[in-house]
Amino acid sequence: MHSGPTLVHHGLAAALALGLVFGASPRVAAAQNAQGSQQHAAGAEHQHGAGHQHDPSHHAQHHGDNPIVIAIHGGAGTIRRGSMTPEMEQAYRAKLEEALRAGYAVLQQGGTSLDAVVAAIVILEDSPLFNAGKGAVFTNAGTNELDSSIMDGATLRAGAVAGVKTVKNPIRLARAVMEKSPHVMMAGAGAEAFAAEQGLEIVDPSYFFTEARWEALQRAKAQEAERPVLRDEEEGAAETDAGARSLGAADAAPDAGAHDVAFPDDYKFGTVGAVALDRYGNLAAGTSTGGMTNKRWGRIGDSPIIGAGTYASNESCAVSATGHGEFFIRNVVAYDICARMRYLGLSLQEAADQVVMQRLVEQGGEGGVIAIDRQGNIAMPFNTEGMYRGYIDRDGNLVVEIYKD
Amino acid sequence: MHSGPTLVHHGLAAALALGLVFGASPRVAAAQNAQGSQQHAAGAEHQHGAGHQHDPSHHAQHHGDNPIVIAIHGGAGTIRRGSMTPEMEQAYRAKLEEALRAGYAVLQQGGTSLDAVVAAIVILEDSPLFNAGKGAVFTNAGTNELDSSIMDGATLRAGAVAGVKTVKNPIRLARAVMEKSPHVMMAGAGAEAFAAEQGLEIVDPSYFFTEARWEALQRAKAQEAERPVLRDEEEGAAETDAGARSLGAADAAPDAGAHDVAFPDDYKFGTVGAVALDRYGNLAAGTSTGGMTNKRWGRIGDSPIIGAGTYASNESCAVSATGHGEFFIRNVVAYDICARMRYLGLSLQEAADQVVMQRLVEQGGEGGVIAIDRQGNIAMPFNTEGMYRGYIDRDGNLVVEIYKD
Repeated sequence: MHSGPTLVHHGLAAALALGLVFGASPRVAAAQNAQGSQQHAAGAEHQHGAGHQHDPSHHAQHHGDNPIVIAIHGGAGTIRRGSMTPEMEQAYRAKLEEALRAGYAVLQQGGTSLDAVVAAIVILEDSPLFNAGKGAVFTNAGTNELDSSIMDGATLRAGAVAGVKTVKNPIRLARAVMEKSPHVMMAGAGAEAFAAEQGLEIVDPSYFFTEARWEALQRAKAQEAERPVLRDEEEGAAETDAGARSLGAADAAPDAGAHDVAFPDDYKFGTVGAVALDRYGNLAAGTSTGGMTNKRWGRIGDSPIIGAGTYASNESCAVSATGHGEFFIRNVVAYDICARMRYLGLSLQEAADQVVMQRLVEQGGEGGVIAIDRQGNIAMPFNTEGMYRGYIDRDGNLVVEIYKD
Repeated sequence: MHSGPTLVHHGLAAALALGLVFGASPRVAAAQNAQGSQQHAAGAEHQHGAGHQHDPSHHAQHHGDNPIVIAIHGGAGTIRRGSMTPEMEQAYRAKLEEALRAGYAVLQQGGTSLDAVVAAIVILEDSPLFNAGKGAVFTNAGTNELDSSIMDGATLRAGAVAGVKTVKNPIRLARAVMEKSPHVMMAGAGAEAFAAEQGLEIVDPSYFFTEARWEALQRAKAQEAERPVLRDEEEGAAETDAGARSLGAADAAPDAGAHDVAFPDDYKFGTVGAVALDRYGNLAAGTSTGGMTNKRWGRIGDSPIIGAGTYASNESCAVSATGHGEFFIRNVVAYDICARMRYLGLSLQEAADQVVMQRLVEQGGEGGVIAIDRQGNIAMPFNTEGMYRGYIDRDGNLVVEIYKD
């Protein structure tokens, strides 16, 4: 068994060849798998047995001593029992299950946690039910601006994009940023140019139009017009009906005034995410969102912020967050869960609960996270009425849930 | 003495009225100062004596038991003794001293740490010597795209902007995002529209042109053309001479190919930042940058990322970072220093050294940080040849340094 890293990274060769590798490299492990050899980092908490052959079968079991696990979320918010029709609830459950099974199949077939995270998130992005990809909410300017991020727990490589309008699957672009560029984060037109170079699927902005999200924007604007504005400075600026602009009107100037309207809960949520543990013992996390309905001024939430919305390290855990992004950024939520595990010696559940159920609650920061560790433990705390969520655990049990109880 | 928060925040009233306040609120403390009353948070590590009158004098002493401290940086990199003319070195030292004195004067006059951080950074932004504001490096497209962030350790409020091209002082815009919007982060044209609404000074993009930075871009491009590209996929895409485009050509498409050229050290550095401790016991941190010479695809580095380039919490410390941003994002550098202090019980110096001199060095992540805690301790580790830096400590001693030894 090798103990030193012998990676050949294409994207970050010079930098990461010098770096620590926390656990097996997915690529190298996959390549060396046939020789029964895997790499493990010095200091990794958990050493798994080496040498698993690829198993293309689809039975819902983990492989030997190495657990495989996936967990996903489709957003947290005011989701109460009875607030949805049975048909709608069934549609959500079916799509969550489809995403879980897609990601799990990748893990079963010997794929990496990164592959599983992308496979699950793409299904949620492609569904109009969730606020990511198709189904993204509208900005105040009537556009759909998408954010996403991904992180590889084995190498700490990460990729993130913010404010893209023409990339069908932002999670794929985040991965391309991680693997095919020297950067971690790209934004706007530059990120779209990179996506085109990389041959990712580009769509017309109208692809992201959904009637339900458009109506939500109109309701948000109407509500904003009715509600008292909390801050009374800088009123009087002409309020333009930016929402009536045509879809895809890039960089339309946001309207002025009415800054601090308290957004109803539903406007903040619907982000999707996935975390996975593969047979090589490697963690990964990813998140994708359309952000906040009626958002202005090129607002960026926590989803594309490594540390806030997404973090993964084989040293501790993998986390994807959903909720009122500003609070998640200020509290560096995803990384803080990892830090509390590693530095305070807490369990995954304790660390996630401290951050989501105590610290965020004290500050009024609504939302939740999904998190897994290298032992395959799963924690999914949320401080809202509900969170679309599901997992397939190390024993192969599939669970999909929506409400608190 | 009050023990509960009675803050009246204009910007984030609903959210933060519910929140923890870590230490005295600058605004409330300032308002109540004449009554000899200050607020302290439950759980704050350090309780200072209450009741200081405003002292408009400029003597270099702290006030009673409450230390006031400021530290700044102007970027880290390959800065060797003898690599600059004596005149150039003197110009850097003089500008660093000017920024320190400006920030310190604010603290002496009873201003807040946020005010001091902004005062110091504005001077560095306005100087062509540093890669922030006037003097920012050029992107591959021949534009100047500025990033900045700021954080208030008392409330965990934060503001950040990325990719702005027309705002004279991005640190002021970051502060406006924090104080005048419900958001933490804004990007691009939307952020610029918000800046205009807020009445911040808007300049023509040509304001940011400096001959030295333009020449650096040409050298970077020439070097890129000469150097072997590390990754050989996706070659053959037509390379356009984007650098020859006119200044201020907004959103010019980045050119293709040559992704993974190893940037010479100097291309990554020059970010500026400040951290301060005010007489109310409150910490603040801010960072501002033009990013990386020849950057493409709307690349965002660590400077506008709360947790990576900037973090401040009265629970632990205030940090501003400078260096190869991708490594600082992956390692959540600024927040990790705070987390190691708080969770591992390390001193400021120990925590900063672990992250900068061990963890980043192991990964090849070049750069440094400035950090202070509520006791007024200062740590400024860097793993490069030099870092433009300085501080005025709790005894009023002013120190400016450039090289390692």
